[in-house]
Amino acid sequence: MLKPADPSRFTVHLVGAGPGDPELLTLKAARVLQQATVALVDDLVNPGCLKHLAADCRIVSVGKRGGCASTPQSFIERLMVYEALRGERVVRLKGGDPLVFGRAGEEIAALHAVGLQVEVVPGITAGVAAAAAARTSLTHRHHAPGVAFITGHRQPDGSPLRWAALAQSGLTLAIYMGVAEASSIEAGLLQGGLPPETPAMLVHAVSCTEERLVATRLADLCNTIQTKEVGSPCVMLIGQAMREAVQLLHTPKNSSWSENAVHAEEHVRQHVAA
Amino acid sequence: MLKPADPSRFTVHLVGAGPGDPELLTLKAARVLQQATVALVDDLVNPGCLKHLAADCRIVSVGKRGGCASTPQSFIERLMVYEALRGERVVRLKGGDPLVFGRAGEEIAALHAVGLQVEVVPGITAGVAAAAAARTSLTHRHHAPGVAFITGHRQPDGSPLRWAALAQSGLTLAIYMGVAEASSIEAGLLQGGLPPETPAMLVHAVSCTEERLVATRLADLCNTIQTKEVGSPCVMLIGQAMREAVQLLHTPKNSSWSENAVHAEEHVRQHVAA
Repeated sequence: MLKPADPSRFTVHLVGAGPGDPELLTLKAARVLQQATVALVDDLVNPGCLKHLAADCRIVSVGKRGGCASTPQSFIERLMVYEALRGERVVRLKGGDPLVFGRAGEEIAALHAVGLQVEVVPGITAGVAAAAAARTSLTHRHHAPGVAFITGHRQPDGSPLRWAALAQSGLTLAIYMGVAEASSIEAGLLQGGLPPETPAMLVHAVSCTEERLVATRLADLCNTIQTKEVGSPCVMLIGQAMREAVQLLHTPKNSSWSENAVHAEEHVRQHVAA
Repeated sequence: MLKPADPSRFTVHLVGAGPGDPELLTLKAARVLQQATVALVDDLVNPGCLKHLAADCRIVSVGKRGGCASTPQSFIERLMVYEALRGERVVRLKGGDPLVFGRAGEEIAALHAVGLQVEVVPGITAGVAAAAAARTSLTHRHHAPGVAFITGHRQPDGSPLRWAALAQSGLTLAIYMGVAEASSIEAGLLQGGLPPETPAMLVHAVSCTEERLVATRLADLCNTIQTKEVGSPCVMLIGQAMREAVQLLHTPKNSSWSENAVHAEEHVRQHVAA
């Protein structure tokens, strides 16, 4: 029987690839990718992220694509363990942040179970990048004390999410993977007490070249998805904090800039010591 | 009267510096910093992030430090507008992500009001980095359909947060700036129905050299903060998804690795085609 080396000498890196744009990788993620000898990569990861890998790094695609057969989770976990125990420098590259909707908890448990070390390199999660695309804060000291990142999927037992509690939380809601469940989301939040006119931004393919923003309001969520043909992947941002973003998208560009700008420049000349 | 150039030609960049470790800047943030001629920097930003600025970039510290006089928000906004209208390439560098607890919404509104363009470069927010430090997922398909990033501060009118709705949401809670309000957080979540034994991780100075993790449970939140002297800045992660992280911190390192590892290696040899 083969006696492996002390597995605690080996570290597997779980790395967040961010929402799409390869420039949203962190400097640390880029460095860890450069040092990898084996990379297990989700299909949703932008191929542009892989240019940081060394030329001789072995790339294993292990992700899921809608509708197609996906790599079993247990296979991914076994392969990570196997390669790491052989002394390979293993990177597990996941879209977004590894610890937000990624089953990374199960992968970490599998690695820890055999004594391997785990390091997580966080990534930009899609909800944060969607707010950047919409140029609007997710929090607001007067009407949003925080933000919830939630899946739009039903829970494994088929029960819907607790939309009433979420509606009453006062938080901005950033809903991932919610397009297919949009009608139950809309109904649940309305029944939970969110006003029909609550502003909402739909951000499709956040940070990618095909990124698209569609403004709407809670009561029109489903209707807008259908009539504007908003497909997955999509993050829905719902809450009063979205009000300015929705207005911005509806304001003709530069409608009043010149007058305001002259005024502002005079104003700052009087008040700012440069 | 001075007639400014079309302000829509100018773009101000709001950039997230991440939670502390300068390596958690994104590649895009590093590039934007390199191109800046004026940088308005929060005090909470790690000085290591500034090495990406050009040697002749003008750095203006505009942040807040606990207890000291802070730069008025209106001054920051006027200065950004003034420098941008003069044609400077202005970067506003904020800790974490600009759109999570940063008053960036007010800054974006001020920039848009004079017709300037705004681009937001997202950053790693502290709650995500705290989970990476604890090596635990913030979501779990069986017992946490999402995560809420919330401030522990009372709202501006003095009213506490809606802890009952948050307790009933089923979400993992990542509470920022909550040390001073820990007793009301603990009481609010218990009254809202979260079990006393709900696991909690306190992450001080996330991603910095002085980073420190302390495991506890909801009913001991205040007590642990006092007895273990957990100071600010601190992210509290509370919820069932923290269970494994809490166990991990309490498990003697490598307690059973050798046996498990031999077993795992045999297992993968049988099942994985390398």
